[in-house]
Amino acid sequence: MGRRAVSQHFAAGDLVDFTASVLHRWGMPHPQAAEVADLMVEADLRGVDSHGISMLPQYERLVAEGRLDLAARPTVTTTGGGAAVVDAVNGLGHLAMAMAVSTAADMAARQGVAAVGVRRSHHFSAAGVFATLASARGMVALVCSTTRTRAVVPTRASTALLGTNPLALAAPGGDPDAPFLLDMSTSTVAVNKVKVYDQAGEQLPEGWVVDHDGLPVTDPATAHRQVRSQAGGGLNPLGGPEATAGYKGYGLAVAVQLLAGALTGSTFAPLRQATQVHDDIGHFCLVVDPAAFGDAAGFRASVDEIARTLRTLPATDPAEPVLVPGDPEWRAKRRRTAEGVPLFPVLVDLLTAVGERAGAPFPAHRARPVSPRPPGDPAW
Amino acid sequence: MGRRAVSQHFAAGDLVDFTASVLHRWGMPHPQAAEVADLMVEADLRGVDSHGISMLPQYERLVAEGRLDLAARPTVTTTGGGAAVVDAVNGLGHLAMAMAVSTAADMAARQGVAAVGVRRSHHFSAAGVFATLASARGMVALVCSTTRTRAVVPTRASTALLGTNPLALAAPGGDPDAPFLLDMSTSTVAVNKVKVYDQAGEQLPEGWVVDHDGLPVTDPATAHRQVRSQAGGGLNPLGGPEATAGYKGYGLAVAVQLLAGALTGSTFAPLRQATQVHDDIGHFCLVVDPAAFGDAAGFRASVDEIARTLRTLPATDPAEPVLVPGDPEWRAKRRRTAEGVPLFPVLVDLLTAVGERAGAPFPAHRARPVSPRPPGDPAW
Repeated sequence: MGRRAVSQHFAAGDLVDFTASVLHRWGMPHPQAAEVADLMVEADLRGVDSHGISMLPQYERLVAEGRLDLAARPTVTTTGGGAAVVDAVNGLGHLAMAMAVSTAADMAARQGVAAVGVRRSHHFSAAGVFATLASARGMVALVCSTTRTRAVVPTRASTALLGTNPLALAAPGGDPDAPFLLDMSTSTVAVNKVKVYDQAGEQLPEGWVVDHDGLPVTDPATAHRQVRSQAGGGLNPLGGPEATAGYKGYGLAVAVQLLAGALTGSTFAPLRQATQVHDDIGHFCLVVDPAAFGDAAGFRASVDEIARTLRTLPATDPAEPVLVPGDPEWRAKRRRTAEGVPLFPVLVDLLTAVGERAGAPFPAHRARPVSPRPPGDPAW
Repeated sequence: MGRRAVSQHFAAGDLVDFTASVLHRWGMPHPQAAEVADLMVEADLRGVDSHGISMLPQYERLVAEGRLDLAARPTVTTTGGGAAVVDAVNGLGHLAMAMAVSTAADMAARQGVAAVGVRRSHHFSAAGVFATLASARGMVALVCSTTRTRAVVPTRASTALLGTNPLALAAPGGDPDAPFLLDMSTSTVAVNKVKVYDQAGEQLPEGWVVDHDGLPVTDPATAHRQVRSQAGGGLNPLGGPEATAGYKGYGLAVAVQLLAGALTGSTFAPLRQATQVHDDIGHFCLVVDPAAFGDAAGFRASVDEIARTLRTLPATDPAEPVLVPGDPEWRAKRRRTAEGVPLFPVLVDLLTAVGERAGAPFPAHRARPVSPRPPGDPAW
């Protein structure tokens, strides 16, 4: 990835306090501000740098533009024995989604399975953060969301139309600190990853970005401009071009759009009216109680057995052992809990400025040796 | 794809009658045999040639080896307000999965959402055939399944371990004959597609098959041998190599293993005991009633609106318009319903021999002009 600026490390607790303080000064009541701050910094702890505290400057802009209401309190309406709808009332997605998962887990404990949709919402950290709220209660959870921008080019199309429409699935094994966790966008990579390659001046692999004619773009500056401009081309769906089954990733992105968008009655971004102030993002979660299908302890043992079988497979490179979804997140979390969350100087400056405008001082970084490994989101 | 042998066309009804007759002579009671035959030939009608009548020779072998019990009658046990378990009792998966979807749809109509697992099952046609049983009732359905062979190489591993672990999602729009249908394996391509390329002598794109060292294999004969042998290497998960996010497809394959395998208590193929006679495949379905989340008619209109927005996008090649998942299947079904199901001579010979051994004559092909387009499964 080339050389990067040296980052400073911050105690997760300090970042939570700072974030909660900023959110509170923007109008969010206190216990809620602390809850949202926890959910945001959890993404940073897991190495998902793009979805945590780095979102604060964008939230600040949305609040200033009157497009995000931090005083909003989500409401839940039960619509069936295993179904409910949460109205986020144009607030941040974090509270609404946490409420959705909690409601679904309660219902699933009674019915075996439950589904909750969220409408009129906004950005909500990483999908996996919410899926693991359910796995921590012994449940299996599928979480997915629409997004506000058009970034992904449908197979055969010349322009981006779909969001990166993320989905996550979490399932508990024996270790409560390391459940199975698949947390992915349905595009090949995130917009943010193209930005990081541009900053590093590193060529992109073919299969990430295509131009207006469907041809691969590997020059990082061109690719980044292209993904940002939405003028033509954009990110490939998972699978890349049609020859390598990109239509499956495209299909997954549409499936997420149907569950998190059409089912919840949220706006399909390309059809959003110019006069529409709020993004009206939709989320969806499905929670399944393994106990309803057999032996809950047996399920957790199976999850562990499958993971162990995968991790002990011979690797093509012994220095890079086979991982199981969630391993990179839990490894990052252990490390960052101990050593602090690394933030690039440019982000520290941005957050310090956000804090100054809100009247909340950004915390001091920890005096610790710089990590020998470059920080940033792990490959997976 | 090079030149192929000219296929003959058969009326779908004739193929259903033949299949039902064979299944009956193998021990399956009559109404069930007709139901299974319908579900099998439905895959052929949709162009999913690998999962329909072409499976009969394999079923014959499994029956002869005592590993598949066609007299088995699946049973369903309700385990929660929205949960049930179907025991396929080592019979074919078709009846068990149809029962699972039907049960889940009944429950979802009451609760808003339901999930049913199937254990002790076998092969079951294409996952999408079952997902659309629910969409025909106005429901959204997710269907997934484990498989009996190890074909897919986990990211960073040197050997195949996972099955192609398919998943399908169907959702109703306004046209009952053309719902949204994502019907995919979690590998880049199916084993069968590598076989077809081998038969045609066509080079494989990079990203389909890797060798023991994780390097791409593009020679079709080498690739086919490699995928069959399970000695090292195999199919890439969706996404291809790690650089193009193959770990996401790998993660999806494991997620399917957890839902359809661990949750249902079915066997993880790599851990199957040599003494185990039956494959013990697991399936899983989740059914959601859109009416529980808002307006059912509004949901169908949204599905149509999203599909229309996608289909009318400018295409990189105007001759190849943007499709929506399900379009290839419904196009194939219209064509094959009218013109017959095309079968290659080698398959006709195999099926004729199966019929002779069972005492069921294979039907005559239709006298119709040969299709100008080569048959076989559409790219998507």
